[in-house]
Amino acid sequence: MIDMRCEVVAIGTELLLGQIVDTNSSWIGEQLAASGIDSLMQTKVGDNAGRIQQALRAALERADAVICCGGLGPTQDDITRECIAAVMGVSLERVPEMEAEIAAMFAGRNRAMPESNRRQAERPVGAQFIHNDRGTAPGLICPFTINGVDKVLYAVPGVPFEMQAMMARVIVPDLVQRSGETATIASRVLRTWGSSESAVAEMLAARMSELDALESLVACPVTIAFLASGIEGIKVRITAKAATSEEVVSILDAEEVQLRAILGDLVFGVDDQTIEVVAAGLVKAAGLTLAVAESVTGGLIASRLVSVPGASEWFRGGIVSYASEVKFELLDVPVGPVVSAAAAEAMAVGVQRRIGSSVGLSVTGVAGPDEQDGQAVGTVFVGIAWPDGTVEHQLFRLPGDRERVRQYASISAVNFLRQGLVRRAAFLAQS
Amino acid sequence: MIDMRCEVVAIGTELLLGQIVDTNSSWIGEQLAASGIDSLMQTKVGDNAGRIQQALRAALERADAVICCGGLGPTQDDITRECIAAVMGVSLERVPEMEAEIAAMFAGRNRAMPESNRRQAERPVGAQFIHNDRGTAPGLICPFTINGVDKVLYAVPGVPFEMQAMMARVIVPDLVQRSGETATIASRVLRTWGSSESAVAEMLAARMSELDALESLVACPVTIAFLASGIEGIKVRITAKAATSEEVVSILDAEEVQLRAILGDLVFGVDDQTIEVVAAGLVKAAGLTLAVAESVTGGLIASRLVSVPGASEWFRGGIVSYASEVKFELLDVPVGPVVSAAAAEAMAVGVQRRIGSSVGLSVTGVAGPDEQDGQAVGTVFVGIAWPDGTVEHQLFRLPGDRERVRQYASISAVNFLRQGLVRRAAFLAQS
Repeated sequence: MIDMRCEVVAIGTELLLGQIVDTNSSWIGEQLAASGIDSLMQTKVGDNAGRIQQALRAALERADAVICCGGLGPTQDDITRECIAAVMGVSLERVPEMEAEIAAMFAGRNRAMPESNRRQAERPVGAQFIHNDRGTAPGLICPFTINGVDKVLYAVPGVPFEMQAMMARVIVPDLVQRSGETATIASRVLRTWGSSESAVAEMLAARMSELDALESLVACPVTIAFLASGIEGIKVRITAKAATSEEVVSILDAEEVQLRAILGDLVFGVDDQTIEVVAAGLVKAAGLTLAVAESVTGGLIASRLVSVPGASEWFRGGIVSYASEVKFELLDVPVGPVVSAAAAEAMAVGVQRRIGSSVGLSVTGVAGPDEQDGQAVGTVFVGIAWPDGTVEHQLFRLPGDRERVRQYASISAVNFLRQGLVRRAAFLAQS
Repeated sequence: MIDMRCEVVAIGTELLLGQIVDTNSSWIGEQLAASGIDSLMQTKVGDNAGRIQQALRAALERADAVICCGGLGPTQDDITRECIAAVMGVSLERVPEMEAEIAAMFAGRNRAMPESNRRQAERPVGAQFIHNDRGTAPGLICPFTINGVDKVLYAVPGVPFEMQAMMARVIVPDLVQRSGETATIASRVLRTWGSSESAVAEMLAARMSELDALESLVACPVTIAFLASGIEGIKVRITAKAATSEEVVSILDAEEVQLRAILGDLVFGVDDQTIEVVAAGLVKAAGLTLAVAESVTGGLIASRLVSVPGASEWFRGGIVSYASEVKFELLDVPVGPVVSAAAAEAMAVGVQRRIGSSVGLSVTGVAGPDEQDGQAVGTVFVGIAWPDGTVEHQLFRLPGDRERVRQYASISAVNFLRQGLVRRAAFLAQS
């Protein structure tokens, strides 16, 4: 196999003006990396024919493949097709079958096709269309030769969910095939909460050394990488390579078991699972209903839980007891310091009773900028009242500014609930 | 003045791998555009000396100025300083004054300076430092000549709030000065809610034609642009140019009056003001307190309001009445359809009484995927209970998927509150 290099050129003046943030290139880069393809440079360029061609030529000089994103729409601004044809040194041809397909799409929505959409049925001579099952703009695969070297240009729409479907279905497999790679590559992400990237890395250091040692002996089929994107915890990505997809899955399964044995309770889910989706599944499976009492998080936990489809089956509601009197009067918290373990537990019991749910979850803490009740900024107590009358709490010391503390407190609370449900499920299974 | 062109090179392998989305380039592009400086291409490149130099040289060939972002940290990965020196053809010099300044910063935090941070006191010969008042990595201004043409390279840290401070304080003014522009350029954004971009554009079409007509006669000092970034409404940016900053401000003021007369109540704020900050200011100014009852938004409104600094002065709390029984039992909503004007009004009155606030705000609606109470997805009722016993509601038909409907419902509710407070303030001022 050749060491495949693929650059991304994102097209659109609105990207340069900051009216839209270019998240497409980042997403494409992540997909390429997971398939073992290097993306060494990425470029943003405006809707200008000369500069688009300049950017494409420069990228093709450095890389084997280029994905250009955007500029496939029907308006006069959309000149990606023309620019690619110019770079390939060919003309555009209009394809009647694609014209008919686009017209049929409009007809299916009871709309007449505007004349301008016919441009979307054009492709550079020698290119193939990529079917768009989510919009009218087809993508393009354009293989050609520069100075005797094989290159390939892909064009995808700028609309993320149209682009993503084409990448997964056509472009990544096509790139992998062109690289001469006959193996299947796949990856799985273990999602963790409650530890820093360096602490997770330390826990996995021995296992990573083992894999490195294997690699120096044979082409190792498994690699591990850390992703720290966003605030939702550290992600551990396992990538595996094998002859068939069945083999890849069994390698991923085996490595997941190894890593879960090391990371234990830190792992809350895999791939796109959010912590609230996982907790929701456990609440539902246990036949429970939930209510939340929030102070410092001010509704963030409730809104996370409501975002889970089907939440109405198990989520009953919540009380945002921001003012202390609301805690005392509505949740029967004993008058006294409200940032305390006792207040958190009383809030959990209070909301369980007041809303009439089987489980009550609560959060009270200090987001700053000032300390409260003698407690430092970042101090957060989470409480849970269980159906059997058991009440528990946990203290967290969270870093960051006001907004960060509130977000971390929400995630920590849902994670504490998840851990409690896992423990209880194990206990119930034993007894 | 020369027509200044400035490119952005964002440095960091994590940007290419999609672990972090490059929002810095977009932000910089927006600032440059607002100052009349073109940004025609933007590049992302990994932490590789050869490729960073290649990207910088290519950008300097096309543009008068290049801002490189990232790679100024203390670790071995951070090679921006070395790469700039190589492109300039000079060596690095360590500056004892900057070394002392960085050491003092660590001392101020009661920490010893790690040896590696001394690298941050290095600069290419001929460059100047840009003081970093928010972190340890100073920025760089590097003016030099390529083939007899004056160019300038800037380096800023990748941490957004450190970068943004340097851009505003030093780099944008420096670029404007180098362009020979003696006029002052400034802009102001009017933020609107409740109308589409095309509808806002239609309302402003006549005024924009007037400005265009002026421009063909004289160099027009005012331009208008639409920004549709994010979900928080359409932004209308006014940009003005004049000899002094006093003149610019008075041009902006005059144009703001013109546009507000056209857009009326659609305008909720200017520049970085969020709708909750504006509403919070009105609640506080009127000496009121607020409580919210949320169904479809599930805590989103409360969490927006709590995010406003000083919220504890006027925000008392909320009830997330997700299950219908919570509406009936805790908010005294009459048993019946819960997606209705009557339910919204009862919820507002119920939360006002239950939480003990002077104003109650409520939302009930259908986020989907299925309709409810015979109401289509996107149907949302907002209710308000005022201190004088007046109760009112408004019906919204919101577009989008489940998450979009919930977000739009939150913003619409806070905007309805804002409009009510503005009307009442006007009424009280008259009477």
